[in-house]
Amino acid sequence: MRAVDIILRKRDGAKLSPEEISFFIRHYLQGSIADYQVSALLMAIYFQGMDAKETAALTEALVNSGETLDFSGFLRPVGDKHSTGGVGDKTTLVLLPLVAAKGMTMAKMSGRGLGHTGGTIDKLACIPGFRTDLSRREFMAQVKELGVAVMGQSPEMTPADGQLYALRDVTATVDSIPLIASSVMSKKIAAGAGTIVLDVKAGSGAFMQDAEEARQLAEAMVDIGSVLGRKTVALITDMDQPLGHAVGNHLEVAEAIETLQGHGPADLRELSLELGAELLAGSGIMEDRHQAKKSLQESLSDGSALEMFRRFVTAQGGDAGVADDLSLLGSSPHRLTLTAPQNGYIGRLDARTVGNAAVLSGAGREKKGDDIDLLAGIRLYKKRGEKVQAGEVLAEVSGSHRDKLQAALEKLSDAYSFSEKPPAPQSLIIERVAK
Amino acid sequence: MRAVDIILRKRDGAKLSPEEISFFIRHYLQGSIADYQVSALLMAIYFQGMDAKETAALTEALVNSGETLDFSGFLRPVGDKHSTGGVGDKTTLVLLPLVAAKGMTMAKMSGRGLGHTGGTIDKLACIPGFRTDLSRREFMAQVKELGVAVMGQSPEMTPADGQLYALRDVTATVDSIPLIASSVMSKKIAAGAGTIVLDVKAGSGAFMQDAEEARQLAEAMVDIGSVLGRKTVALITDMDQPLGHAVGNHLEVAEAIETLQGHGPADLRELSLELGAELLAGSGIMEDRHQAKKSLQESLSDGSALEMFRRFVTAQGGDAGVADDLSLLGSSPHRLTLTAPQNGYIGRLDARTVGNAAVLSGAGREKKGDDIDLLAGIRLYKKRGEKVQAGEVLAEVSGSHRDKLQAALEKLSDAYSFSEKPPAPQSLIIERVAK
Repeated sequence: MRAVDIILRKRDGAKLSPEEISFFIRHYLQGSIADYQVSALLMAIYFQGMDAKETAALTEALVNSGETLDFSGFLRPVGDKHSTGGVGDKTTLVLLPLVAAKGMTMAKMSGRGLGHTGGTIDKLACIPGFRTDLSRREFMAQVKELGVAVMGQSPEMTPADGQLYALRDVTATVDSIPLIASSVMSKKIAAGAGTIVLDVKAGSGAFMQDAEEARQLAEAMVDIGSVLGRKTVALITDMDQPLGHAVGNHLEVAEAIETLQGHGPADLRELSLELGAELLAGSGIMEDRHQAKKSLQESLSDGSALEMFRRFVTAQGGDAGVADDLSLLGSSPHRLTLTAPQNGYIGRLDARTVGNAAVLSGAGREKKGDDIDLLAGIRLYKKRGEKVQAGEVLAEVSGSHRDKLQAALEKLSDAYSFSEKPPAPQSLIIERVAK
Repeated sequence: MRAVDIILRKRDGAKLSPEEISFFIRHYLQGSIADYQVSALLMAIYFQGMDAKETAALTEALVNSGETLDFSGFLRPVGDKHSTGGVGDKTTLVLLPLVAAKGMTMAKMSGRGLGHTGGTIDKLACIPGFRTDLSRREFMAQVKELGVAVMGQSPEMTPADGQLYALRDVTATVDSIPLIASSVMSKKIAAGAGTIVLDVKAGSGAFMQDAEEARQLAEAMVDIGSVLGRKTVALITDMDQPLGHAVGNHLEVAEAIETLQGHGPADLRELSLELGAELLAGSGIMEDRHQAKKSLQESLSDGSALEMFRRFVTAQGGDAGVADDLSLLGSSPHRLTLTAPQNGYIGRLDARTVGNAAVLSGAGREKKGDDIDLLAGIRLYKKRGEKVQAGEVLAEVSGSHRDKLQAALEKLSDAYSFSEKPPAPQSLIIERVAK
């Protein structure tokens, strides 16, 4: 087998065999296939695509490139959730204790965020004392005992994915559906999940702005799960406006806790329940999604989800008092408010622009390694479809650095557009993709 | 300007500006753009193509990457010829003295061959004493004095083309028309030609087996010449059967000399006259192609072309006696003959199979750096359309290594196919492409 022949076959539209794909990845890691051959193959894949079998084979090759977590001795089903990322998306913080309280094991390896706000790891850092730098042994022990744990992504897992991603980033081959799908799924599968739920965002604040592309990505990931024997469901959800009212790390943690307390914004609560129901039904813990959702609603109202959150925070060294006193998360010293310039309905609240405003306030990273202001962020008091009067407060920008807030506020004002009539309603859950 | 943005633009089908193209090539040579970015761009070009302006800009960037020959002080027009390569193609050996005898300057930089037989440099090595390792100074002096000289390709010229080709070779991006066209034309333009004639072969023994692809390549090269102000004409010529009767280095030199003597096979003579007429008319030495061709026919019959060949050989240290005594080229110690297995017409004489047989006999290289047997080769006594009787000699395989000849003979027998009726005639010159 020669690398150039494999590139040629893909270039000419052939389907690559699992042997060819694993040969390529294995030799790339070993250094016997050069990065210039890999980037040529990636570009050929960009143009010619890969079918479900090829994408699954690539996923498997990425999984096999490093260590994996093994929960085969565990009695309780192991689930995982992935979001393609959106503005104000703090769903993981709600979902983990919510389903763990119902007997689902959630062993979550998470990354730092790049973009509008931080990732789950950054958000958890807002909780005083919370540690995400668990050792593998600590992590596994906590997963076994409590049923839920979070740690940073390990470089020993799917190392080929890390190398491929770095190469894609500088060769204009990031936005290829089979490459994205295999990258996401390899991490979930290496982390040992048997049931996987995917939140594929569509809209201005999403990686996939177009619903049709989001559907293709969702289908590609569900197909991989199906080929590799993991129960996988994807929900395509609206990211044309931000999720919830809070954008920015400490604000988002607070909003997640409010949701666990049984309040919180309707969209965040609904999405958490739907994703949770998929996990419980998909893993067989509950008979069907309807029953699962009802049961999860009870966990929110009877406090058992919040109690699981307290135990989870405590287990990782954090101050569980945050579950009852949000002021422990800290507050921003500086704030500016945005008021409505006119009467009318909010016709649109553009998620991408809100995200950019959040980055300007200091809440997100423009590039890897940038510092992040955990106290910076945006609170959206008014969202799409709401009626407002001129001068009414729409939103608030806050953060540790006063000098950043004016630019953030100006950007944020661009996110709102107004109309005389209420805009057509938009469903939160656009489509469910399953096999 | 960032490399990844240029790759992205080409991937998405944009036209690259001359600045973007020269930026990419310049930084690649300097090492500040990585080869994995170049290979990604090459694959994107494979899929998205390049228009005439982009291809010309790439050609210019390749030319500017190294040294060039400058004939601006020369009074006589400088021409060059390129063939995309075929089996039995010894046209350059005829063409150089033929047009030099009419006042055209031919400063030819030529490569060693890879494939069926050697390149022009290999063929000239069959002439006792002939040197192609001229210094730049010797080469320029001979060009100035005699009007014709040949030397090996210099690594100081178009170095970016050499680097790009090496990368294309291992990344399945060789067969892209704009990349082939710019590579060929960059070498011709760097070598200082004002008038360029291109022999684009089409058929089984050609790089472009399909006439439509050959036309696209011809048009791309003629377009480059036009954008960069070089008079450029391409002839698309038949390479479904070999050119002439001789395949293999010393046999081909002998056949070229026979043609200069006024004999030689009709197809080789015709092609040499047509290409020569393009050069003389294109450069303005002759008023039109008709007049030019007549004048070149006279050079063959009055001995002036052969006399120029003698002077050319002498100037480069060779034994000009070969012009009158072909035995000085040496002869093969071993030979085998192929006879017709049946009565009938030769329906096809497949050039590619003949080429492969020639490689088996030792006449060509399978890979760079392979040794070549200058005395090995094939003499085709019968070609397409000829009537033969069972047992009649069709061809002869010869060479220095007896053990190679049987396999070559068997391969050669596959090249012939027979029919009851004569095959449809095939024009040697399929199309003329000019602007």
